This record gives sequence, C-alpha cells and structure tokens, in this order.
Amino acid sequence: MTNALQLTVPEGVPFIDFSREVDYPVDQVFRAYSEPDLLVQWLGPRRNKMDINHYDFRTGGSYSYIHTGPEGVPYEFRGIFHTVRENEFAIQTFEFSGYPDVTSLEFMTLEALDGGRTRIITHAVYPSMEARDGMAASGMEGGVSEGFDRMDELLAQLQPEALQGRGA
Amino acid sequence: MTNALQLTVPEGVPFIDFSREVDYPVDQVFRAYSEPDLLVQWLGPRRNKMDINHYDFRTGGSYSYIHTGPEGVPYEFRGIFHTVRENEFAIQTFEFSGYPDVTSLEFMTLEALDGGRTRIITHAVYPSMEARDGMAASGMEGGVSEGFDRMDELLAQLQPEALQGRGA
Repeated sequence: MTNALQLTVPEGVPFIDFSREVDYPVDQVFRAYSEPDLLVQWLGPRRNKMDINHYDFRTGGSYSYIHTGPEGVPYEFRGIFHTVRENEFAIQTFEFSGYPDVTSLEFMTLEALDGGRTRIITHAVYPSMEARDGMAASGMEGGVSEGFDRMDELLAQLQPEALQGRGA
Repeated sequence: MTNALQLTVPEGVPFIDFSREVDYPVDQVFRAYSEPDLLVQWLGPRRNKMDINHYDFRTGGSYSYIHTGPEGVPYEFRGIFHTVRENEFAIQTFEFSGYPDVTSLEFMTLEALDGGRTRIITHAVYPSMEARDGMAASGMEGGVSEGFDRMDELLAQLQPEALQGRGA
C-alpha cells in the first residue's frame, strides 16, 4: 500500500482535487494544520523557507505567510478560514500576491481510517479556468507532494517513542 | 437605457455572473453594501424580513444574517470577507444553512460610470456544478433583481433633495 499523493486536474471545470493518506491519527494531522509552529515545518517544498505573519486556524480566523525560495524571491500568501471543525474539516480562501484578487476556495476533509491512519482530501475551486490551469502548471503537484512527505517526517518525530529516543 | 439585471448561468462551468447598473455614485452604492442598517433595507426579495446577527464589511470581517419568508421559514446565511476595498471591490464566502459546507466565493466589482452612475458586477464561483445549478434553480435571479430594485428605492430616499422634502 502506498500513501502517494493522488492529484487530479479535471477537464473543463476549474477544480484541482487531491488526496493523501498518512500513517498517523486524525488529531495529529489536524495539529499539523492548526499549529503554526508545526505548519512551518512541513507546508510546501523543502527548498523554501516559510515565515508566518499570522495564522489563526479557526472559523473566522485568517492567515498570512511568506515562502522564500533559495534564490531569495518571496511568495506571499493570505486568506481567511470560512470554517474549521476540529479533526474533521476546513474551508479557506487562498490568494497569492503574484496574482492579486485571483482567489481560490479550498475544502479540506480529514477522514479517520482504521489503524490510526488518516486520509486528507482537498477540493480546490478557482475563479476561472485560466486561474486553475495556471496553478496546475505552476509546480503545485510537486510542492504539495513534497509538503506531505515533510508532514510524514514531522509526525514521525513527534511520536512518543521518537521523543523518548531523543531523551526529551 | 435600462438598468435591468443581466444574469448569466454559463454552460459547463460552476459560475453565475450578473451585472446591474444604478443611477447613483459608487460611494453611495458601497455604503449600501457596507452599512448593516442600509443592507437590511434592500438585500433580497421584498417578501423576506432580514435580521442581521453581525455584519463587518472589511477585509477579514464576517457576516451572519437570517431571511425569514412570509410563511415564517428562516433562511440563515454566513460568510467571511476575504477582501474589501472601499468603493471598488469585495470578495466574500457565502454559505446557506440549508446546504451546510456547500460554500461559494463571490467577487463583486463596483465600476464608477460617467454621470454619477455605477455598474455592479458579481462573479459567483460554486464548489460543484450541482451547487451552481441548485442555486440557479432556486429563484436566485428574481431575488437578486428585486434586491437591486429595492436598492434603487433606498438610494433615492437618501438623496439630499428627498431628505429635504421630508423636512429631515
């Protein structure tokens, strides 16, 4: 069984859909999304440095962060959280400063699976076909995939046995 | 020249688009959207009574209101404001309690036209074709059209000559 990212770019509708299974329980996955100190350790490609301006993962909260690539170019992202339900579901807006006002809406579902595992399912909705196609062509899949690999590594480090092994 | 609502339901993509011209300047139209005491006098069909729980029309703000039909059935709506730019533009999420989590994203542009007039342009983006089709079939066009007629009436009442005529 593989946990590889499954990402689809459906023909003719402005959506991107992906799902990813992880070998950790849903409450830990939710923490990885909700705690800024954790989020900053996994979201996006390894080559980027992430700085969080603010990140308030609750219904009505908002977020703003910057990814800086190895060449020093900053990419700013912001949005608001329309809904956050602990360990279950979130809806957020997403806007990249390079394309001002071209805002998307992302629906994220966490499914608890048997054996203490989780499926993360995201449905992203773009305001035009051009916006969706631009995002799909931007290297999004690689960045999302790498981010989930980093989430695996982070959650592995947070397991009790790993922390004890470090004499924490 | 007619100011009638122009609404389109494009084939195959989950959008609804409409535009409406009004014979009032953009700052007054913006006030009609931003001030709850004004909003409650025009948004939606005449037959509904509108009660606002909260309405904070600014970037990062949120809203919640109820429309009650003549038969006493309440319709609850909520969302957050991703962006609000005074007299220009707003992006909000929109969720109806009858379809929980089926949230749309609405982009509203105010264009200042010659002669102290305004064009209001809205692009609404739905998370599925089913959601878009359901909204289009719900009587949305009639409700939006009636709301703009009520906005015309409200803004007419707020003109200085109208207020003076009432001895205000």
